[in-house]
Amino acid sequence: MVKIVECVPNFSEGRRPEVINEIVRAIQSVPGVAVLDVEADADHNRSVVTFVGEPAACLEAAFAGCAAAARLINMEEHRGSHPRIGATDVIPFVPVKNVTMAECVELAARLGRRIAEELGIPVYLYGEAARRPERKSLPNIRRGQYEGLKSEIARPERHPDFGPPRLHPTAGATCVGARPFLIAYNVNLNTPDVTVAQRIAEAVREKDGGLTNVRAIGIYLSARHQAQVSMNLLDPGRTPVHRVLELVRREAARYGVSVTGTEIVGLVPAEALLAAAAYYLQLENFDPARQVLEFRLHKE
Amino acid sequence: MVKIVECVPNFSEGRRPEVINEIVRAIQSVPGVAVLDVEADADHNRSVVTFVGEPAACLEAAFAGCAAAARLINMEEHRGSHPRIGATDVIPFVPVKNVTMAECVELAARLGRRIAEELGIPVYLYGEAARRPERKSLPNIRRGQYEGLKSEIARPERHPDFGPPRLHPTAGATCVGARPFLIAYNVNLNTPDVTVAQRIAEAVREKDGGLTNVRAIGIYLSARHQAQVSMNLLDPGRTPVHRVLELVRREAARYGVSVTGTEIVGLVPAEALLAAAAYYLQLENFDPARQVLEFRLHKE
Repeated sequence: MVKIVECVPNFSEGRRPEVINEIVRAIQSVPGVAVLDVEADADHNRSVVTFVGEPAACLEAAFAGCAAAARLINMEEHRGSHPRIGATDVIPFVPVKNVTMAECVELAARLGRRIAEELGIPVYLYGEAARRPERKSLPNIRRGQYEGLKSEIARPERHPDFGPPRLHPTAGATCVGARPFLIAYNVNLNTPDVTVAQRIAEAVREKDGGLTNVRAIGIYLSARHQAQVSMNLLDPGRTPVHRVLELVRREAARYGVSVTGTEIVGLVPAEALLAAAAYYLQLENFDPARQVLEFRLHKE
Repeated sequence: MVKIVECVPNFSEGRRPEVINEIVRAIQSVPGVAVLDVEADADHNRSVVTFVGEPAACLEAAFAGCAAAARLINMEEHRGSHPRIGATDVIPFVPVKNVTMAECVELAARLGRRIAEELGIPVYLYGEAARRPERKSLPNIRRGQYEGLKSEIARPERHPDFGPPRLHPTAGATCVGARPFLIAYNVNLNTPDVTVAQRIAEAVREKDGGLTNVRAIGIYLSARHQAQVSMNLLDPGRTPVHRVLELVRREAARYGVSVTGTEIVGLVPAEALLAAAAYYLQLENFDPARQVLEFRLHKE
C-alpha cells in the first residue's frame, strides 16, 4: 500500500524565474517525487511548490529545496506583500493517502532538525507539529516578520525549536509543520483600497468571529493595483469555498465593492469544486461518485 | 486499445421498481457491460439506464433490455409527463473512448434491424443515425406520441426505417440512434403553472431562437405539484450548464418565478461541473488538469 504525502513549501521569491526554476529542479532531482504545481506570485514575491511522493522521498526533496533557497535567496533584499520570515518560509507536510497526521508530524520534526543542523537555519515547528500551543498558528510565529524576528528571536519565548536563537544571515528562519489539506484561495476586489480588503478579511476569518476554518488577510497587489482578500480554507469539506466567497461578496457590497475574480493557488480536491457547482446550480440529489462520468470510467 | 461506447436507453416505466429492476437485470446479464446509472422518474413515468462497454456487448445488452421492456410494459396503460412512443422509447449510442460517431451510427442500424426482425417492433433511426433529415430530431419522430402514431405510422412519411408500418400492440415503436454526449438537465420552478415552464422552454431553446444546442420543454410534475423546464444540453462544452441555468433564471424572473432546484439525470462529465464552479467562483487562470488533485494523483 503506497503512502502518499503532499509537501507544499513556500519560497520567498516570486519574480526571478531562474531562481524559482533552480529550486524546483533541486526538488525534482529526488527520485520518487512528482512536482504537481508551481505558482509564482510577483506581488506576494513568493512561490508555492506542490509535490507528492512517499514520506522519505518528500523529506529529501523538501530538504533539497530548502538548501537551494538558502543559497539563492537573500532575505535582506526581499520585499513582498505576503508575511514571511525566511528564504524557505514554510514547509507543511499533508497526509494524502494511507498516511496519518502523526506520520506527517514526525516527518516535520525530522526535517526541522536536519535543516537546523546541516544548514544552520533556525526552525519553528507549527501546525499539528507544534510543540508549543501558540505555535500551532503561523501568524504567531511570523509576528514582526523577518525584519522584526532578527532581535525578537533572542527572547526565550521566541527561541526556535531547532537551531540557534539567531536568524541565518540571508536565509532567515523556516517554519516546518504538518496540516490537513487546505485550499489557498484569493479574492480580488475592484478597489485598490487595502483597508477594504482588511476589513473584509476580519469579518470572514475565524479569529475575529467569522467562519471557522478560515484564515484571511487583506493585501495590496501593486502589479494589479487591486486589493485582495488572501485566505486559507483549513477544512473545505465543512467550510466550503462557495460559502466563504458568498460571505466575502456580502461584506464587499457593504463598501460598494465587488469581486473581479478569484484564484485557487495550487491544488484543490475535485469535491470542493463539485460542491461549489452543486451549490450554485442548485442541484438536487446529486451524487458525484455515481454521476460524474470520469469517476465511473476509472472504476470500471 | 479498448473501445468504450455508452448506451442510454429510456424505458416507459418509472413507477414499478420490479419492472425497472427486471429490465436492468436483462441488460446486466450481458458479459462486458457495466450499468453505471439507473434513474427512475415517477412523474415522467420513465427510467433512464446508462451503461458502458465495448460496442458489440452494448448492442447485445440494449437488445436484451428492449426485449424485456416489450414483455413487461404495456403502452396502452402508460401515462406520464414525458413524450414517448414505445416501451423502449429511445436507445442512443454515444462514443466515449476510441470510438467514432460512424461506428455508433452503424451500431444503431444493426440494433434497429434486429429489434424489428426479432421483436416485431417498428424502429426509427434518429440523431446522427437518421436516414431522413427530419428524423435527426426526436420530437419530429415522436409527434403525436404513442397514441397519435397508431394511425399516423401508416402514412408513408411516417413509416419506420425498420419493421412494419404499424405499432407493436403493447410495445409501440422505438427510436434507435447515435449522438454525442449530452447532459439531461431539469430545472424545477416554484410554481405549478406549466405554461410558465413552457414559455421559459421556448425562450431558451435553439429551435425558437434561444441558445444553440439546447432542447427544452415545459412539463408539470404532479407528484411535486411543480412545473419543470426539462432540457437536453447537446454540446455542453460550447453551451454550458451554468449559462443555460442563468438564462432560465432570468426568464423565470420575468414571471416572478424562481428556481427551487435542478437535477442532472444520469451522468455528467466532470469538466461540465468544473466549468460551472469556475464560472460562479469567478476563478482566474484555473486549469483543472493541473490543479485538481485527483486528476494529478491518477496520472502519477
